[in-house]
Amino acid sequence: MDLRKLFYPEKIAVVGASPGFDGGKMPFFQFLQFMEYKGALYPVNPAHAEISGVKAYPSLDDVPETVDLVIAQIPARFAIDTVKAAGRNGAPFVHFFTSGFSEVGNMELEKELVETARASNVRLVGPNCIGVLCAESRITFNMEFKPNGKGNVGFLGQSGGVSDNFVRMSGSRKIRLNKAVSYGNQADLKLEDFLAYFAEDPEIEAAAIYVEDVKNGPAFLDALGKTTASKPVILLKGGSTQRGAKAAASHTGAMAGDFKIFSSAVNQKGGIIVDTFEQMMDLMMLATSTRLPRGNRVGFLGAGGGTSVCFTDLAAKAGLEMPVLAQAVQDRISEKIPNVNTSTANPVDLGAFGFDFSIMAHTMLAMDQDENIDVIMPYFSLDFITSFAPHMASSGPEIILETVAKMKKPVIPILSKFAEDVLEMEKVRIEMFSVFREGGLAVFNTIQDCVNAASSILKWSNGR
Amino acid sequence: MDLRKLFYPEKIAVVGASPGFDGGKMPFFQFLQFMEYKGALYPVNPAHAEISGVKAYPSLDDVPETVDLVIAQIPARFAIDTVKAAGRNGAPFVHFFTSGFSEVGNMELEKELVETARASNVRLVGPNCIGVLCAESRITFNMEFKPNGKGNVGFLGQSGGVSDNFVRMSGSRKIRLNKAVSYGNQADLKLEDFLAYFAEDPEIEAAAIYVEDVKNGPAFLDALGKTTASKPVILLKGGSTQRGAKAAASHTGAMAGDFKIFSSAVNQKGGIIVDTFEQMMDLMMLATSTRLPRGNRVGFLGAGGGTSVCFTDLAAKAGLEMPVLAQAVQDRISEKIPNVNTSTANPVDLGAFGFDFSIMAHTMLAMDQDENIDVIMPYFSLDFITSFAPHMASSGPEIILETVAKMKKPVIPILSKFAEDVLEMEKVRIEMFSVFREGGLAVFNTIQDCVNAASSILKWSNGR
Repeated sequence: MDLRKLFYPEKIAVVGASPGFDGGKMPFFQFLQFMEYKGALYPVNPAHAEISGVKAYPSLDDVPETVDLVIAQIPARFAIDTVKAAGRNGAPFVHFFTSGFSEVGNMELEKELVETARASNVRLVGPNCIGVLCAESRITFNMEFKPNGKGNVGFLGQSGGVSDNFVRMSGSRKIRLNKAVSYGNQADLKLEDFLAYFAEDPEIEAAAIYVEDVKNGPAFLDALGKTTASKPVILLKGGSTQRGAKAAASHTGAMAGDFKIFSSAVNQKGGIIVDTFEQMMDLMMLATSTRLPRGNRVGFLGAGGGTSVCFTDLAAKAGLEMPVLAQAVQDRISEKIPNVNTSTANPVDLGAFGFDFSIMAHTMLAMDQDENIDVIMPYFSLDFITSFAPHMASSGPEIILETVAKMKKPVIPILSKFAEDVLEMEKVRIEMFSVFREGGLAVFNTIQDCVNAASSILKWSNGR
Repeated sequence: MDLRKLFYPEKIAVVGASPGFDGGKMPFFQFLQFMEYKGALYPVNPAHAEISGVKAYPSLDDVPETVDLVIAQIPARFAIDTVKAAGRNGAPFVHFFTSGFSEVGNMELEKELVETARASNVRLVGPNCIGVLCAESRITFNMEFKPNGKGNVGFLGQSGGVSDNFVRMSGSRKIRLNKAVSYGNQADLKLEDFLAYFAEDPEIEAAAIYVEDVKNGPAFLDALGKTTASKPVILLKGGSTQRGAKAAASHTGAMAGDFKIFSSAVNQKGGIIVDTFEQMMDLMMLATSTRLPRGNRVGFLGAGGGTSVCFTDLAAKAGLEMPVLAQAVQDRISEKIPNVNTSTANPVDLGAFGFDFSIMAHTMLAMDQDENIDVIMPYFSLDFITSFAPHMASSGPEIILETVAKMKKPVIPILSKFAEDVLEMEKVRIEMFSVFREGGLAVFNTIQDCVNAASSILKWSNGR
């Protein structure tokens, strides 16, 4: 199915656009203005002659051109007429923000909506969703979306709130979103239709999905298999328990099936299932980082014996190995540190010298030479760096990044923080995170998040 | 064993105290000054007549009084003489910061140290550790420690770094630390000795332990059982995997045994074992909150259908139940919200009204009346609150706290955040967190942390 005009519409009508943000309406029209959408924009509202400085039309029939996309935010009782008007206009796509259909038990109205769409030659997004986002065409459902180039990530979310959360968290983590669809009740266009488009879309290098129910299992698995053939797909399943499925039914009218069957089919098709939203974001960050680990042999360096021990335990539990470093590598590390309260074997414990970015860099370069190591994880303790080496915090991340550029192996930094109420430390964290992310590295907040994400990506790439 | 003088020393000598912070030394002497320790302080260092404004003594033999505690930070080769001098002084306790003993294979020196201590009637803390902290007597191993009253939590950590992290994170989370010991190599005084003291200590209401190896299993389990009889004990085991145990051996000379045997024995004695440091902190916060859940039936309220579904799944996976609310309760919730895009059944999805603290409060009061609910978890979306209701963020938490005071059931708020790079949002988070914590509530950053901690505490209290 050709969804190109849905993602790249040259003309958009917003039916139910409003000058104010009242009545629970989303300001879709203003979003498009704010994003500096370059195409033609037609607000439709019989109560206003003008909306946000643009001439408004009493009805869709008054819009002088055929539009590519209609965004409809009108009460459910006007939905059928809106589809008919879209058909008369020749618009190929209508996105219904409108709710009050199958998710509240109103099955008949939803069925009539779809039949009307078929008869009118119109395809529907939703209803009961916040619709479409595309960085290149500058359309969005979230005011916080700040396109970072064209982007390389696709997201499909059955929930509007989860889709919003994805936009916010991916933005803050510099995961570059290319396209997203909040697809709601899937009355007409379904998850599998969007995913099939993502499979072929050269702009999308990795995809994430939040799904509460799949309408057409075989079509979904087919689209999933086609997508995972060339890009990683991370899935979070809402309603993966009986009680959760009951909650999902009243959310998007979802009829969730058995999760075990779902997850084994997804795994077989090469999808990666996660348990939490945060895990999904961790994996998206890692999947789109510059260099992926090719093996499970980790080299760890940091400050602190207890932390080194805890890292080693968590890495082992996640199925990662930590070979003892070659003697020549250990000797090179030893050149810069005393032999008391330190350890060079792996985990490498640099003691208080683990707060010195130049010694961290020296150690990373040494570890890069060890042929038994696949990936290097440097641990930065923000509490100690801000206490003991605040002068380091500004230039330090750049030193690390310059070092990574000289290395062959992938590097995954951990930015650890224990005090949670120090605004100055949050500032340092955000700055270091930004420098590392702009350098193409995945960055984690805790050792467990780091080893778990690395382990998941490795299992996935080994399974291919 | 009477450790009272160790925790409440009236006179302290710091052997190896230094005017500067150079040479990898910890500024123990300056810590005590900074903390306004009220007892007598004797710095000992032959190279200085005065240290930080206090007359210094060339040797411990020159100190004019018997001290209760000697803190020794001198090279390992002077350790034996220091113990002998402590014996001549009559000091009952020596804490050795000094390392270079069993953790680097120097078994003989450590053995001789203990034999000398026995002969000198001196008990040792360490060596290779940062020693003792007590809020009441104002002694500390960490400059960031800010006593919050007498405190009610005890911590025992084999690692100095992990002990530092505990101080920092507990401080920021307003977990009120009463006593802590970083106990290192356990050459003489052992984990089990400190734990036995905690068991009897009326100031300590909950304890946490980071342990790499237990020297005397039966004594440890006996002390553990005596402690858990009256207070929860959370344990993080370093070296719980074979590879982690190897790392622990070079850290504190630990000889870790089989983790399965250890964990089943600990569970049998009523201890709670966690996998990560952060889980330990989560449980300490919950264990010391004002009201603990007495059953596993959760009422959830928040904004967002997808988040509600995800919460429900994670709660079910953690063994929590979510009964449908009584009709009268649902009716009362409905009074304040429209019936579109909301759900009152449980999870309660207030839609955009979930950003309004007064409607959250109204809903919590309604849920408090439901006899099938044991604990209420309100979900606050910081991203949306700071975007849509910034005026709420200042007075909102107080409204919630006033509501909690009118309720019977325990309340555990979740402060969710997806954008990770917005300093203003961190400020709001820190403020809301502080208000809730000062009101005695446990507060979590994610739904998974919240349900997992609640589930662990419930399993523990059900097992008693």
